[in-house]
Order: sequence, then structure tokens, then C-alpha cells
Amino acid sequence: MNPPLSPTFLDRLRELLGDRLSTSEAVCLQHGRDESIFEAMPPQAVAWPTSTEEVVALVKLCREHGVPITPYGAGSSLEGHTLAVRGGLTLNLQRMERILALNPEDLTATLQPGVTRKALNAALRDQGLFFPIDPGADATIGGMCATRASGTNAVRYGTMRENVVNLRVVTPDGEVVDTARRARKSAAGYDLTRLFVGSEGTLGVIVEATVRLHPLPEHVMAAVCAFPEVHGAIDTVVQVIQMGVPVARCEFVDAVAIRAINAFSQLALPESPHLFFEFHGSQAGVKEQVEVVEAIVADHGGQDFQWAATPEARSRLWEARHNVYFAALQLRPGCRSIVTDACVPISRLADCLVQTADDLRESGLIAPMVGHVGDGNFHVQMLVDDAAPHELRAAEALNERLVRRALSMDGTCTGEHGIGLHKQGFLVEEVGAAGVDLMRRIKHALDPAGLMNPGKVFAPHA
Amino acid sequence: MNPPLSPTFLDRLRELLGDRLSTSEAVCLQHGRDESIFEAMPPQAVAWPTSTEEVVALVKLCREHGVPITPYGAGSSLEGHTLAVRGGLTLNLQRMERILALNPEDLTATLQPGVTRKALNAALRDQGLFFPIDPGADATIGGMCATRASGTNAVRYGTMRENVVNLRVVTPDGEVVDTARRARKSAAGYDLTRLFVGSEGTLGVIVEATVRLHPLPEHVMAAVCAFPEVHGAIDTVVQVIQMGVPVARCEFVDAVAIRAINAFSQLALPESPHLFFEFHGSQAGVKEQVEVVEAIVADHGGQDFQWAATPEARSRLWEARHNVYFAALQLRPGCRSIVTDACVPISRLADCLVQTADDLRESGLIAPMVGHVGDGNFHVQMLVDDAAPHELRAAEALNERLVRRALSMDGTCTGEHGIGLHKQGFLVEEVGAAGVDLMRRIKHALDPAGLMNPGKVFAPHA
Repeated sequence: MNPPLSPTFLDRLRELLGDRLSTSEAVCLQHGRDESIFEAMPPQAVAWPTSTEEVVALVKLCREHGVPITPYGAGSSLEGHTLAVRGGLTLNLQRMERILALNPEDLTATLQPGVTRKALNAALRDQGLFFPIDPGADATIGGMCATRASGTNAVRYGTMRENVVNLRVVTPDGEVVDTARRARKSAAGYDLTRLFVGSEGTLGVIVEATVRLHPLPEHVMAAVCAFPEVHGAIDTVVQVIQMGVPVARCEFVDAVAIRAINAFSQLALPESPHLFFEFHGSQAGVKEQVEVVEAIVADHGGQDFQWAATPEARSRLWEARHNVYFAALQLRPGCRSIVTDACVPISRLADCLVQTADDLRESGLIAPMVGHVGDGNFHVQMLVDDAAPHELRAAEALNERLVRRALSMDGTCTGEHGIGLHKQGFLVEEVGAAGVDLMRRIKHALDPAGLMNPGKVFAPHA
Repeated sequence: MNPPLSPTFLDRLRELLGDRLSTSEAVCLQHGRDESIFEAMPPQAVAWPTSTEEVVALVKLCREHGVPITPYGAGSSLEGHTLAVRGGLTLNLQRMERILALNPEDLTATLQPGVTRKALNAALRDQGLFFPIDPGADATIGGMCATRASGTNAVRYGTMRENVVNLRVVTPDGEVVDTARRARKSAAGYDLTRLFVGSEGTLGVIVEATVRLHPLPEHVMAAVCAFPEVHGAIDTVVQVIQMGVPVARCEFVDAVAIRAINAFSQLALPESPHLFFEFHGSQAGVKEQVEVVEAIVADHGGQDFQWAATPEARSRLWEARHNVYFAALQLRPGCRSIVTDACVPISRLADCLVQTADDLRESGLIAPMVGHVGDGNFHVQMLVDDAAPHELRAAEALNERLVRRALSMDGTCTGEHGIGLHKQGFLVEEVGAAGVDLMRRIKHALDPAGLMNPGKVFAPHA
């Protein structure tokens, strides 16, 4: 049980925020959940700051009163990042949603953290530019920075790691720090930007982000093709990457996921493993990429190559791919899902995926598999009845086996979803006790009171 | 004056290393210099470890005896990184020069830190792969990690920030930590890899690095073209980048640098500002890039487009470009150089470069300018007589004006050379006292005794 917030603290919050503060049970409960299967852990109050100055004031106030802070964006975490483990104050940053600067000449945009990826791309439409990072959800830029998000375009355009130029953060002391300037590269001291990217809200509050934009490609083609079995699809991807084809997207969708997509998005793809491709470049460049990929696909038994050349057909295709999470939930109404996130060197991808498919068959779980396979990253979305403990145990056991398999292949327990509450044990296996100890020391050095999103990434100092 | 090393400490070092330890004055002096103009600051002993185990033993021994450690690669730093400010033991890592693993399927190589970039590329020649990061010197991979190096290919392939997959480091406690696994991406906790990339030896010793390799392009073309004045050249580059042409190299060389190159490398280029380009891709892809760039060049008054299509002609061209540092030194025999390293958003590049050229004319200094201008980064190599204090003052004053100009344009004081001893004041201006304080706290958390390359990046805690 969390100690109640002091009346003085609440008074000062109200003074600062007026009706942009809520202590209502319903609002707190809503902010105590995300897309993970953890029990709700509600904060005791929710604040909607609208400026850096307000965030500074809130952080200082919380520090003074020893109140934990949980930053909150779209609430689309799959790993429990936004759950208020120790109660306290949740900072909902969705009202900090202004685009502060567009610099098309420098291919950068400076944003408040509550801007969502779709809102950013809508604002860029007339500029001939786009922002490529696309996790499934319409996440906020702040949340995407905090979890080091990626998505379907990462194989060509990189992840948030490569696409954040600098951040403005409010430190646990209430100081405002710019982690870098707006130059494309810098060798000026420790890489504070990359330290905050992926820090899951545990080192401070991101209040501004400058991100890299990319010119819209002159020409785009998308295609899907079916494979008789998983191995052929994955071997195709591995060869495409090894040949250096600059494919923009390269997604694996297994037969179960295709069934879900067909039903949810009114498509009629054959129920077998598929690859979804997208190619960006000049007309001639795309043609060359397509020719190479078609030949590799044919060599590996791929068939039913279907093109989506018009913007509408492409949108329909990628919309369907992005909705696979929700489509899958419809395969078993009322279910919850537990989603794995292993990522391995691509030379090990086929083995990892096929062995996992074998596990799945044995487990009896319904579980579509999709993957950003150009990066060696794939997800198993296990659909479970959260009132059935044996299903939860089976799903967790499968996840554990998969993570151990990925680690044994020199891979990671999380390609893009983060550690949150869920994978803290795996993190220790992945970077060792000494590696986690370095992280813990950094946390303690920046946040000695342990108030910033406590309990995430690793357990606090013993 | 540094306190003498204790006889016990030296005995234990000798026991461990035999003749791979030296306390000779000449050897220590040689390790107390680099390419910067600082007075030599020699260590009191130099060790040549050959394994991670030996580095662990040395770090523990130094810790036990309170002896500072300076890691040392090729000694090609321009900012005093390898100078032993507080004496102690220099770890010369050049005998850790094995390539531990090549994984062509995953496009990675795992290396000991003493492997140089040229040695790596020689080993990759038969694999159809290459490693793109190319600082002027034939630096070691360990040193390149430690300074977050880049070079002429960064505009397309990124810097060490983007091209290091993981590191094995020996921490100041003597623990061995792998900062990540070998997957292309990961969201597993704090980005320890990026923390050590650019940490300048202050957080631990890099004993292994896994780096990203790239497929050799199917087709390569290089070209030089001359411009009547600086502005036309820079505007050309800005437009090339903004149009998203995936140019592989895009280098600015001013008239003075051309004069140096002509003399040093027996070329006969007209003595005016030049751009050096390289294009990578398929035959058709390169043709397209070339057509676009030729049109932009013509629009900006460029002329004398000269092609270097054969590998030999290309090598000669880039060899000349890479040797510009040494070529420039020949312009004024016996001189030393002070090299600036500003990097700005490319929309500000033309202004920054032209204003700096004006400064240079006023200063009367001989100072060729070259730049990785696709990244907004350029160098002024001021040739000074280090026995003439007024020249040193003039050079430092020009550097200071340039750094302030770059900062006022939202740029950085160092694109790729690092902070070292030279730019600690500028770092404070760049990220603020609060930003440097975060770095200092991280340093203190990982190295409370302050023995790892002391005195670099920032002054220690007051």
C-alpha cells in the first residue's frame, strides 16, 4: 500500500495545474494499465503539464515530497513501463503535443514529447519528408524515445537510436539539460542522447526531441508473396540483407497471422507464411531491387507475388500489417496477449524462428507470429485467457525458452519493446550482473532518491 | 610532479608482463605525445597487454596501488587524449590486434582493440565487405570507438556511433562487461555501447569491439569538380543532401588544401575550392546519382568535372585526400598544426564556412580547410610555429571564434575529434554546466577513484 499523498503536496499541485490534475479513481486506474498483462498499478494522481516549466516545477515538487513520478505517453507499452509501481504522480505528456520547429533543409523536426508518430507524419506531408519509425501503436515521440522503439522501416532507416538528434530532458533534480545540439554528428563528451533513448523514464522526463526526417522516396513499390513453409521465407530475407539490397521494409507474417489479417482487414491472402516487402528509391532503383528480390524469392519457393503499386493498395497492405495485433486479439474474443520480442543475428534467424514454431505447436497456444525479420526481430503474440493460470504459465514458459534460445544465439531478449517490469531477469542474463550493475550505478548517480519511474528496467540497489 | 611508482607495483607488473613492460624515458616520452600541440605528458611506465585477462590484472593492480591508467592505440589523437596528465601506466593496446571473428552472413566482425582500420579492410577484401569509418590516420578500432570517430564515408554509412554493435570493456573495478549482444538492434536497458563509444577511455578499457560491415558496392564512381568560390561548393552539397541523394562521400577541399595536395601527391588540380564525390550503388543507381549531382554542380557554377572511374584513379584521389593533413604540414616545414572540428546543421554550413574563411584572411595564418561537408563538419588546419606565441594565440583565438559561431548555429565544437584536453571549456558552453554535471556523475559512479584516463573530457569533481 502506497502512503497517501500529503494534502500540502496536493494543494501545491492544484495551485500549479488547476483542472489539469486528477485524483479520480477512474482516471488513476486508466493510467495504471497498459497493453501488458500486469495487474493495474494506478498512480495516486495524474498531471497534464503543458510546458517544460511545469514539468520542472512538478519534478521539484515531487522531489521535495519524495513522491515517485511516472512519465506517460500513449499508454501503448507492452511491458508495463507506465505502471505506477509505487503509486505517486503520473505525468501524462499528451498535452505537450506541439511541433516546435520543422527544419526541412536540415531534415530535422523538434517536437514536444506528446506528438504522435502519425501526427508528425501528417504535418510533414506537404514537405516531401517523413519520419520512418513506426511501432504498431500510434505512440508518442516521447514514449518512442524512452523505449528505443523501431518498427517496420528500421531495416533501412534505423531505430530511435539512429533517428534522435537530441533531447531536452528534465533531470531528477529539476534541471533542464539539452543532451546535444542539432548537428548530424558530434564527438562532444558522453553520448547523453543515447543514454536517455531507451532509459524508460528512469533517468528523467523527456520534454523535447529533435528527430531526423527523411526525404519521401521518389518511387515506392510494395509486394506480398507466399511461401510453402517458414524456412523459405526466412532464408529469402537473410539473402536479401546479405546482398545489401536496401529494402525499406521486409516483414514476415505467419499463416495464423494471415488468417487474422484476412478476417480483420478483409483481405484474401492464402493462409501460409508470407513476406511483405516495400522498396524505396528512384524508378530505376526500385526496379533493380525488385528484380533481385524476385529472383531470391523464386529460388526459395516463394509464389503468388502480388504487387501493391498504388498508394491506396499500399496503405491497405501496411494498415493490415500494423493492425495485426488487434486482428489477432479477434481470433479469440476476450483474450489478452503476451508478446515476445526476441532479436537475433540474422544468420540464426531461421533456426530461432523454426524452433519457436515447433515449441508453439507443442504448447497448443494460439499465437500468430510476425517479424521485422530484416533486423532479426520477431514477435509471437500468444493469446491467453488471463483467468486460466495454466495458459499464462504455458505462455511464460514459451517466452522463457525463446529468450534463452535467442541469448544462446548471441541475440537479445528485446528488440524493440524494452525491459519494463517484465524482462528484468532476462536483462541480467543478457548483460550479466556486472552490466546491470553499471546501469544501476548510473541510475543511482542521476536519481539518488529513486523517484523516476521506480522499479523499471532493474530492481533498485539492494 | 607525479609520485614515483612503488617498487612493489613495478615488480608485480614485470612479473605479469616480462619484457612487455617499459619504464624507459624514451618510450614513456613517445607515449606522452600525440598529434596535438600539447607539451608531452609522459606516463611512468608503458605496458603492452595481449589479452583481456592481462588488462583485467593490470586494471586491478593499478586500482590497488592508486595508479592512473591511460589506454593508447595508434597515438593519432588531435586533442591530447592519450597524454598521461597524472603519469601512471599507459596501456598500449597495439598488440591486441587479432580479428576474433568474421561473420559475413551477419555483416559483423569482432576485433581486438589494436586492429587498425586498414588491417581490417585488408582482411575483408576477399569477403566482398568493407568497414567504412576512415579517420585520416590509420587509427585503431579501440581508439576510434573511444573518440566516436567518423571520416569521409559517414555521410552515407554513419559514424562509430552507428557502426559499433557491441563492446567488451574492462571496467575500473576490473570487471569484464559485454555492453550488448550481436543482434542488429536491442531495447534491453541503458545503451552501454553508446555510453562507451566516445567516452575517451575515461570509463574503462575497450578490449573487444564488434562492428558492422557493409557489402562492397557493386559499382563505384568518384569525381572532383572545381568551383570559383566557396559558396557555390557548399550550396551544392546542401542541395545534394536535401534531395536525399545517397552520396557515399562528399568532401570539400579549399584552394590552399588543393595547393598542398598537388605538391604532396603529384596532382595538377586547379587551385580553387573543390568537391570530391564518391557514388556507390548498382551501375544504374550510380548513373542516376551522378546525373542529379552533375546538374546541381552546374547550377552552382561548378566546372572541370573530372572522373576517376578506375580503382587506381580512385585510390590516388582518396589517398591524396587522406594525406591532406601531412601535405599541409609540408606547406610550412617545421610547423605544427592546430586543427578545428566544428560541425553545424547543414543549412548553416555555407555561412559558417564563409565567415571562417573571412576570419582566416584577417588572421594571416596559413590554414587549409577541408570538410566532411555532407555532415556539416569541416576542419581548418592552422599551421603555426610553436615557438611563436603570437601565432599560437591567433590560432586559438580563431578556433574560439569558430566554436562560438558553430554553437550559435546550434552546432558542436567537435564533429569527430573529441574533447580530450583541448575543448573542455567549449563542452561546458555546448551542453551547459548541468549537462557536464551529468557526465561527471556518470564518471564518478563508474570510476570513483578517478584512475581511468584522468583529466580528460572534463575536470574532475571539485
